Amino acid sequence: MFALPQKNFRAPTTCLGPTCTQDMDRSHGDDLEGECSRKLDQKLPGVGDPVMLSSDTSYLSSRGRMIKWFWDLAEEGYRTYHMDEYDEDKNPSGIINLGTSENKLCFDLLSRRLSQSDMQWVEPSLLQYPDWRGHLFLREEVAKFLTFYCKSPVPLRPENVVVLNGGASLFSALATVLCEVGEAFLIPTPYYGAITQHVCLYGNVRLAYVYLDSEVTGLDTRPFQLTVEKLETALREAYSEGVRVKGLILINPQNPLGDVYSTEELQEYLVFAKRHKLHVIVDEVYMLSVFEESVGYHSVLSLERLPDPQRTHVMWATSKDFGMSGLRFATLYTENKDVATAVASLCRYHGLSGLVQYQMAQLLRDRDWINQVYLPENHARLKAAHTYVSEELRALGIPFLSRGAGFFIWVDLRKYLPKGTFEEEMLLWRRFLDNKVLLSFGKAFECKEPGWFRFVFSDQAHRLRLGMQRVRQVLTGKSQVAEDPHPSQTQKPSDQCR
Amino acid sequence: MFALPQKNFRAPTTCLGPTCTQDMDRSHGDDLEGECSRKLDQKLPGVGDPVMLSSDTSYLSSRGRMIKWFWDLAEEGYRTYHMDEYDEDKNPSGIINLGTSENKLCFDLLSRRLSQSDMQWVEPSLLQYPDWRGHLFLREEVAKFLTFYCKSPVPLRPENVVVLNGGASLFSALATVLCEVGEAFLIPTPYYGAITQHVCLYGNVRLAYVYLDSEVTGLDTRPFQLTVEKLETALREAYSEGVRVKGLILINPQNPLGDVYSTEELQEYLVFAKRHKLHVIVDEVYMLSVFEESVGYHSVLSLERLPDPQRTHVMWATSKDFGMSGLRFATLYTENKDVATAVASLCRYHGLSGLVQYQMAQLLRDRDWINQVYLPENHARLKAAHTYVSEELRALGIPFLSRGAGFFIWVDLRKYLPKGTFEEEMLLWRRFLDNKVLLSFGKAFECKEPGWFRFVFSDQAHRLRLGMQRVRQVLTGKSQVAEDPHPSQTQKPSDQCR
Repeated sequence: MFALPQKNFRAPTTCLGPTCTQDMDRSHGDDLEGECSRKLDQKLPGVGDPVMLSSDTSYLSSRGRMIKWFWDLAEEGYRTYHMDEYDEDKNPSGIINLGTSENKLCFDLLSRRLSQSDMQWVEPSLLQYPDWRGHLFLREEVAKFLTFYCKSPVPLRPENVVVLNGGASLFSALATVLCEVGEAFLIPTPYYGAITQHVCLYGNVRLAYVYLDSEVTGLDTRPFQLTVEKLETALREAYSEGVRVKGLILINPQNPLGDVYSTEELQEYLVFAKRHKLHVIVDEVYMLSVFEESVGYHSVLSLERLPDPQRTHVMWATSKDFGMSGLRFATLYTENKDVATAVASLCRYHGLSGLVQYQMAQLLRDRDWINQVYLPENHARLKAAHTYVSEELRALGIPFLSRGAGFFIWVDLRKYLPKGTFEEEMLLWRRFLDNKVLLSFGKAFECKEPGWFRFVFSDQAHRLRLGMQRVRQVLTGKSQVAEDPHPSQTQKPSDQCR
Repeated sequence: MFALPQKNFRAPTTCLGPTCTQDMDRSHGDDLEGECSRKLDQKLPGVGDPVMLSSDTSYLSSRGRMIKWFWDLAEEGYRTYHMDEYDEDKNPSGIINLGTSENKLCFDLLSRRLSQSDMQWVEPSLLQYPDWRGHLFLREEVAKFLTFYCKSPVPLRPENVVVLNGGASLFSALATVLCEVGEAFLIPTPYYGAITQHVCLYGNVRLAYVYLDSEVTGLDTRPFQLTVEKLETALREAYSEGVRVKGLILINPQNPLGDVYSTEELQEYLVFAKRHKLHVIVDEVYMLSVFEESVGYHSVLSLERLPDPQRTHVMWATSKDFGMSGLRFATLYTENKDVATAVASLCRYHGLSGLVQYQMAQLLRDRDWINQVYLPENHARLKAAHTYVSEELRALGIPFLSRGAGFFIWVDLRKYLPKGTFEEEMLLWRRFLDNKVLLSFGKAFECKEPGWFRFVFSDQAHRLRLGMQRVRQVLTGKSQVAEDPHPSQTQKPSDQCR
């Protein structure tokens, strides 16, 4: 029942891989889903490709084999990276990870805050079966928090909040309760590719791509600009190919572009969705990671009036904005009571500890610390790191896109691909890895133009310096590794993924 | 794609309900699944019963409506109960909950232990993306813990451990990776009915019942005894009705019977499963809650040799044995690497906080506290509470089953049902509730004989006393409520559930 075409399914050994610990998760998914979306005229077959499923996984269901297959690719790459992970003291020649989108700049602040005595609270109600929507005390804090930071014109309400253990879970739950098996969400590319798995592994929901490119044409004012016209075209194409589209996924600030949508753009996308009765999932997990003051970020919750509030569902999490991807906390905000309830019903599988719920409530209510300590310092550090990597790229004469939000820069390395193919993109990515720097390549984000890479800059200065030095070595042909290694002698790309 | 027959699907308003906060979750599922299993000759239809889906849930997918429907029934009952929850000071005439299987006897010990300074540790690795199988330090502790407490003849291995956020999630993941949509697990009834939803909501997997009864016939030595003959019969029936059975679920110690299986029985069941190439999920969440020393409990992991180790999957959690259902920690142990990997791949949706993982490792490694403080005290308190309720029941001349494990007594109230129908069972349950004591009725466990109730005794003495006093009032006809209230004037049973 997976939305993966059988005949055109690429075997693991030939599948292009992702490049980072977390985003790794997605890349193969992107490839697969890419196949999916490009072959929309195909009926969805069962899973059973003999090449793909040739391992002795006979104890698993067909979907179990597919689920495992995603892991294997990821895990092999994860192992490769972690077998040679950089450590300043113990393994200074190890791999520097500029691929995983994590904020490693503020662990000092976070550790200090989370270690304070007000975080340590154990009481019976926290140890008993929870309300699966989340404890009320936490949902109240989330509502207040979002009201304030999303600049909502009206107070947001705790009953519209459902908390759970991460954004991945929320995508999984929303896909399942909004879509039938095989239905699709529109998503503009390049996009955070892990979403492919999140909507597919449990929900068997697919993605239909709105392909954007770097060329600024027509009324566009910037590269990779999303317009209603492009949305309309993609929707028409999907329908003409028999794919039923149920919604639209927007990531704002965008990953990997670092773009933020203007209020007018947001409004236009929402009106488009309303016109076609599409749900809109607005992923705002980077909303507090807008470090450039000049960037006018607007949460969808700041709009005076949502065009279709019953079909607009907002997600936020602490993974990015509070640099705590390991804490597993995310929240849904939706005025649609049915959607909130259905997601809550699935939350028995996405629950988070009562103790963590207490800690999150404490954190979110500490407006002094957030406003006076954490956000100013976090933004200053993000900005400094961003400035450093930007200047390095400029010094190398490399074009890039970045609008002052998120943890990454979208880098144009097309001039390093003589033929402009994805194979060359892959080879270049491998050259980086062989020179001990892990990046994410554009194919993993379903970018339609070969040669784009995502550079994550939200890391400590010494690692950034070393990482960029290694990048420079590769691009200036001064790396220690061969310019054109024999692919057969190196590990296959698919083995580098997670 | 839900395994629920359309024609025979009971509308919410006529569906018999469950009776407790957590177990509540399942009862409707039990009913539905009961329909399913009794109608195994029916093809699995889509969802769309107009009665069931008459609310304005048009924003949801058909499976979303089903998922929401489970919640609505549960939530309404939950609300009813919590609107009038007993509190010694604030609401002494509120409802006493002897329905939810939670251990409320040791919060003092747990709070003290979890508040110790060794629990408060925050370091960057705990805040970063985890290994979805669980941090290695935790899996190592789990392996040691299970080796010791399951009395494994060989050291168990961390690589066979996958940790996640609760037993519900583990059922969901295992069902999905082991079964195709519509396939089934055998399960002896009466059983912990929430499993119905756990295998169904995401996985679309059904249950095929092995009906047990209280009559001791043939070679049986006790009521509700599971035998290989009964397993064979149920399997044959399922096959003859076109249902493909992929595995067997065993709960040991059993919920709601409190039964434990002997080594020989365990072995026989496992050999049966091997003969038919069935997976076996052994749910041992009550393994440390065997409070009667004379009971010889044996974990499946204590067996010298598993008949089919590649198809034997063990689950354990802290919810019951450490009285922390709100902490959300469970673990899988399986030698099957493919199954472990596939479950781990789904764990991106079932992850638990790095901080909680650290705390759990600290707890599980504190063998002194567990052995010298927690377990002795917990068992003594369980035993005292069990003794009290048992004696109350004996004084009332009510037969019951209980073998010194778990939190509950399986009580035979059949003599209070003149006609011996489930309708009468429901009315009796309602009389208890009207007299402010919440119990779980047998139908919620898919017991085939009307009149059995599960009494949870793992609660503080003052609540138990009051609860049993109210039970006595009902059974002796001295309750404050009418003997035969007009059903139309009281809330429908289906509204009492969660």
